[in-house]
Amino acid sequence: MARNTQVQADFNPPPVTRTLARFVAHHPSRGWSDAVEKEAHRTLLNWVGCAVGAARHASVEAALAAVRMLAPAPQSSVLGRADRVDMSSAALVNGIASHTFDFDDTHLKTIIHPAGPVASAAFALAEVTGSSGRQLIDALVLGIDVACRVGNAIYPDHYDRGWHITGSTGMLGAAAACARLLGLDEDATTMSLGIAASQPVGMREQFGTMTKPFHPGAAARAGLLSALLARNGFTASPKAIEAPRGFAQTVSTKCDWNEITDELGSRFEISFNTYKPFACGVVIHPIIDAATQLRARGVRPADIERVEMRVHPLVLELTGKKEPTDGLQGKFSVYHGFAAGLVFGRAGEHEFADEIVRREDLAALRRKVVATVDGAIAEDAADVTALLTDGRRERVFVEHAIGSLQRPLTDAMLEAKFRDLAGPVIGAAQTERLIAACWALAQDKDVSAIAACARP
Amino acid sequence: MARNTQVQADFNPPPVTRTLARFVAHHPSRGWSDAVEKEAHRTLLNWVGCAVGAARHASVEAALAAVRMLAPAPQSSVLGRADRVDMSSAALVNGIASHTFDFDDTHLKTIIHPAGPVASAAFALAEVTGSSGRQLIDALVLGIDVACRVGNAIYPDHYDRGWHITGSTGMLGAAAACARLLGLDEDATTMSLGIAASQPVGMREQFGTMTKPFHPGAAARAGLLSALLARNGFTASPKAIEAPRGFAQTVSTKCDWNEITDELGSRFEISFNTYKPFACGVVIHPIIDAATQLRARGVRPADIERVEMRVHPLVLELTGKKEPTDGLQGKFSVYHGFAAGLVFGRAGEHEFADEIVRREDLAALRRKVVATVDGAIAEDAADVTALLTDGRRERVFVEHAIGSLQRPLTDAMLEAKFRDLAGPVIGAAQTERLIAACWALAQDKDVSAIAACARP
Repeated sequence: MARNTQVQADFNPPPVTRTLARFVAHHPSRGWSDAVEKEAHRTLLNWVGCAVGAARHASVEAALAAVRMLAPAPQSSVLGRADRVDMSSAALVNGIASHTFDFDDTHLKTIIHPAGPVASAAFALAEVTGSSGRQLIDALVLGIDVACRVGNAIYPDHYDRGWHITGSTGMLGAAAACARLLGLDEDATTMSLGIAASQPVGMREQFGTMTKPFHPGAAARAGLLSALLARNGFTASPKAIEAPRGFAQTVSTKCDWNEITDELGSRFEISFNTYKPFACGVVIHPIIDAATQLRARGVRPADIERVEMRVHPLVLELTGKKEPTDGLQGKFSVYHGFAAGLVFGRAGEHEFADEIVRREDLAALRRKVVATVDGAIAEDAADVTALLTDGRRERVFVEHAIGSLQRPLTDAMLEAKFRDLAGPVIGAAQTERLIAACWALAQDKDVSAIAACARP
Repeated sequence: MARNTQVQADFNPPPVTRTLARFVAHHPSRGWSDAVEKEAHRTLLNWVGCAVGAARHASVEAALAAVRMLAPAPQSSVLGRADRVDMSSAALVNGIASHTFDFDDTHLKTIIHPAGPVASAAFALAEVTGSSGRQLIDALVLGIDVACRVGNAIYPDHYDRGWHITGSTGMLGAAAACARLLGLDEDATTMSLGIAASQPVGMREQFGTMTKPFHPGAAARAGLLSALLARNGFTASPKAIEAPRGFAQTVSTKCDWNEITDELGSRFEISFNTYKPFACGVVIHPIIDAATQLRARGVRPADIERVEMRVHPLVLELTGKKEPTDGLQGKFSVYHGFAAGLVFGRAGEHEFADEIVRREDLAALRRKVVATVDGAIAEDAADVTALLTDGRRERVFVEHAIGSLQRPLTDAMLEAKFRDLAGPVIGAAQTERLIAACWALAQDKDVSAIAACARP
């Protein structure tokens, strides 16, 4: 796969973000000439005039009608908390929360995490519109189809350029789902997608910071706003995705339109959705899988002299941190993933806690691991050989990691993972009710059961 | 200037936006297999588990603390209206309004319209924080500096790719201005810029629709949210603008870092801000200027046999509509711009009204115009020759259009333009008070005088 198509990447740029921040934070008040000061007032005057002049324009009426639908707070639930906020904020916060542990679903063809943007927007809106469970499920399937099909069209070039594809296609999925929930017709849905097309969110540089989970949240918020605007008559280009100066061609050189249109309505991309067994990026999963298999064979950390692993090139590009110093960094360390898998036989959120990542025995184990990139290894595969202190060699070849399409999580494993996540927050009994509410959603008259069960 | 650096632009893509919209609007409820239906529930269950599990995470606490600052509505003013909405929505709506007539300010080096994103965000926040007029002016100057400096670094490649640079740098300016108003320190300001860097808004395909003015509004809203998140401890990459997978390198091949750092704090980009005399894109201004000069020489529409104009290549690329059918299309027609200038001697918002654009005499005049692209003509220049029915030729060469840096609008012209815009909305007397309030802002203890005078 052709990676890094970018021309002349500058791997040693000056720290301009901080330079600008220092300037903004410290430059003295009125630290400029009279001419600059005057220009500031002229700029302000002109801006006020323009805004006042257009105050009764159809664009402003439509935008105001849309934002009025966001207020007054509290409209929608923040899952796992007693808080209720306006629906735009709920879409944002639930989107952030659901991607925070890097434990959400993955459309493996594109490494999009589609539920974050799509479900977060649709659920927040459904609480306000009183949509049925059936309607929410429909919106979820269709919204995920839109996001992933557009993703298929532009992956991998788009991702290679630096876009975090979950947020930069998710706003289209969220807009589609919300348009569906609002019952928009074809024309208004076209506008909803068109408005959303102007709002891709997220660069890969943010990986390892809170802004990574912000991306699906912001995409959810953008998609919801787009649908509300379209519902109120706001217009966009009907060719916003495909036009030469539209979304796809602006953010990607590869634009395979057939990926969007082929088998539309008969092949559903949600069929290719997978769920992570481990609380970190999917690229490390084959290695953690291999580690748990070594552990199941009786290999213990104390037995290890050295570990040699052959991995797909993306593994070291994305998760090459050899000496992680906190939980978040641990998620970007294939070395920690291996160590956790061997020590604990699992790699849930707990195994990426700060105190676990900082444990000396895990650090020692990480240092014994040598990772080698091999283009012949598939993204969901790994080849691990443990050289033991007694001279034995134990080799595990993982062809398809657990959680892949070929080896999907069973419903029981999915429920077990859910209990690990939700139990500590809302308690065991309520967790069981929440699981039941999710499975039964399509029969429910509205989505309030999930909202209620998720409230601690 | 190297334009259109995009590889293999597809100028005849299939209408996938509408195809997807039709699918989302019309695909039947549960129009898929049991396996797809089951996968939807698994996706939902997994999403709920992830969101509930992270409900107490620091990311979620920070995001919630930020969105709580948005509520309760009404917090901030919509200029020119009695409405007050939450500050995020006010930033959005004022940003839309101020760019709706395409009449706002222009940083000519980059064709960024900086006040839309920066002032809209800063003003909405200043109403809530009770900032002084001085603080707002400071935030405006600094925020515009940030947006335009980043724009300088990536223009023109970034714009050529398809980005509407006002919205795709404006979120950085808005984030900077709001960080300043909130009194954030250097570290938190770095985070504010970092979060904003993930949220560029706007593709050029949207020109001619309401989503064009949506871009500065959405950028204002994104920048404001970024600052509120940073204020509450949300993190981003401190190299989010410059890193290889950060903002600039993802959205542009050209990244001239010196444009960001050179003379920072001594050269201010707001000094290069200009104000449009005509209510349309700046690329048509030289032609309208030429038309008004022909009119001043006594040339009347009835005298015209044919008009030949030589223009910069961008003029026809952006405003080549020969037969506009409504006011918005008229703004993207250099032919209408010429006709309006010759018939009326001006081209304010009124001259782009639907009924004016549709007038037969203007359509007839537009049809007499032949435009030729000439790379030797500067962007703010135009060469127009009118061939008259009596055989005479009248030629006007505009070296720098009125409103350019070389021929700036005077304060009196700026005030006259303001009266044209605001007068019909808030009345003549209040318009004078609003003008006075803008000029006096730096001395005011808060920004309430502008908010009050702008309320009808």
